[in-house]
Amino acid sequence: MKTGFVQFAPVFGEVRKNLAAIERLVSSTRADLLVLPELCTTGYCFASKAEARGLAEPSGGLSLRFLKRLSREQEVSLVAGFAEREGSRVYNSAALITPEGQVGIYRKSHLFWNEKKWFSPGDTGFRVFRMGSVNIGMMICFDWIFPEAARTLALRGAQIICHPSNLVLPHCPASMPVRALENRVFTVTANRTGRERRGGQDLRFIGRSLICGPDRRVLASAGGKEECIKVVEVDPARALDKGMTPRNDLFRDRRPGFYNVPS
Amino acid sequence: MKTGFVQFAPVFGEVRKNLAAIERLVSSTRADLLVLPELCTTGYCFASKAEARGLAEPSGGLSLRFLKRLSREQEVSLVAGFAEREGSRVYNSAALITPEGQVGIYRKSHLFWNEKKWFSPGDTGFRVFRMGSVNIGMMICFDWIFPEAARTLALRGAQIICHPSNLVLPHCPASMPVRALENRVFTVTANRTGRERRGGQDLRFIGRSLICGPDRRVLASAGGKEECIKVVEVDPARALDKGMTPRNDLFRDRRPGFYNVPS
Repeated sequence: MKTGFVQFAPVFGEVRKNLAAIERLVSSTRADLLVLPELCTTGYCFASKAEARGLAEPSGGLSLRFLKRLSREQEVSLVAGFAEREGSRVYNSAALITPEGQVGIYRKSHLFWNEKKWFSPGDTGFRVFRMGSVNIGMMICFDWIFPEAARTLALRGAQIICHPSNLVLPHCPASMPVRALENRVFTVTANRTGRERRGGQDLRFIGRSLICGPDRRVLASAGGKEECIKVVEVDPARALDKGMTPRNDLFRDRRPGFYNVPS
Repeated sequence: MKTGFVQFAPVFGEVRKNLAAIERLVSSTRADLLVLPELCTTGYCFASKAEARGLAEPSGGLSLRFLKRLSREQEVSLVAGFAEREGSRVYNSAALITPEGQVGIYRKSHLFWNEKKWFSPGDTGFRVFRMGSVNIGMMICFDWIFPEAARTLALRGAQIICHPSNLVLPHCPASMPVRALENRVFTVTANRTGRERRGGQDLRFIGRSLICGPDRRVLASAGGKEECIKVVEVDPARALDKGMTPRNDLFRDRRPGFYNVPS
């Protein structure tokens, strides 16, 4: 299964321009699954809640219709971060979109820094979606630092964890191999590049998107500043095997009765 | 607080010789807390359950009495892995021993490979012990790969996670900085070196003991083959601060309702 990430620098507020960039990038390669960054249609640094709401779209809006068409035409499943409006609320969401028209939504559970001013905390929890014969999980950016996020997805059967990101801290690229290993899954972190100075914020996004395998190996990675797509062949069946030794299965060996129980 | 690890190669079955080596090493340095490897009094490669039971000792046995005396005389708290006998059972245990004579026991929850033939799975769960003004947690070797182990200790207040180990796989030294970061605690992994060929096993232990800080930094580390003690000054109070940004506290930001709940 050809699986990859798209690393680029969305332009704040320029939804149509960003969608055009995504179309250009996605159309330039052949893949079965491509992961795009967090908030890749709007950019990141909102200056007010009203601005976030104004740029956000319902899951049936322009951006997801555009991505559904692109997914169908290019015959590639897409995972893309977008600002999702539902009623009076705005979520930092990701959509899994398949060529068959399936759309699965995840709303970010752990909001980072000023995101708490613009977004409501996600209410979906960690969902796993069936895509053909493969189980796909999604988490967004800062979710990674909570081991329970990837763990919950993996325990629910996710074989590939798609991870749209807008990383500004240096820790994630060094840590994702551990998330992949401890859960024996594939992870695809699609980060953005570039800089945004808006609303009193000045953020440099670190790029360094990466794909990790269940054995902790980095299967593909990007530099800190380049726009690029990287695609690798992965065998999702490898993520079904939680064995570490002939007598150790990382899931069957768990001792849930001892985890985080009030003493 | 001067905190360190002792890395050496215990000799299989030579309990008195190993205790003498421990005394020589521990007496060679000044520290407040020293972590020794897993099963550091007996060695690792048992050939039968009877042999494991024969070398195991109750927590009031020779080895812990020796270490209590050493702790008192050298005024250093010790964490040491040992084979613990209780009734007909043998546990892969670790003891926290303070100069004041306090002894806390942890019994390994996640047994690795052939350990399942010699040891009973630990029944203590992940306990946190108060040592002066500092909360100490213990986990043993393979426990590290289960993120719930360090997480549970940290959520229960552990500031320093002591991690006696007999590592043979390469993953742990690269991963412990992530355990420290995601929980904002200090970790002290004390691994052994050397090789044991017994009972159909041929194991090379990888050394590479390390101390990690809450910011993911490696504060001290050892090579793969050397016998050594490394001690660093740590401020356990840093582990009380779970902040990542002015709006993010890694513990208060958790969403337990979304973690590992059957969907």
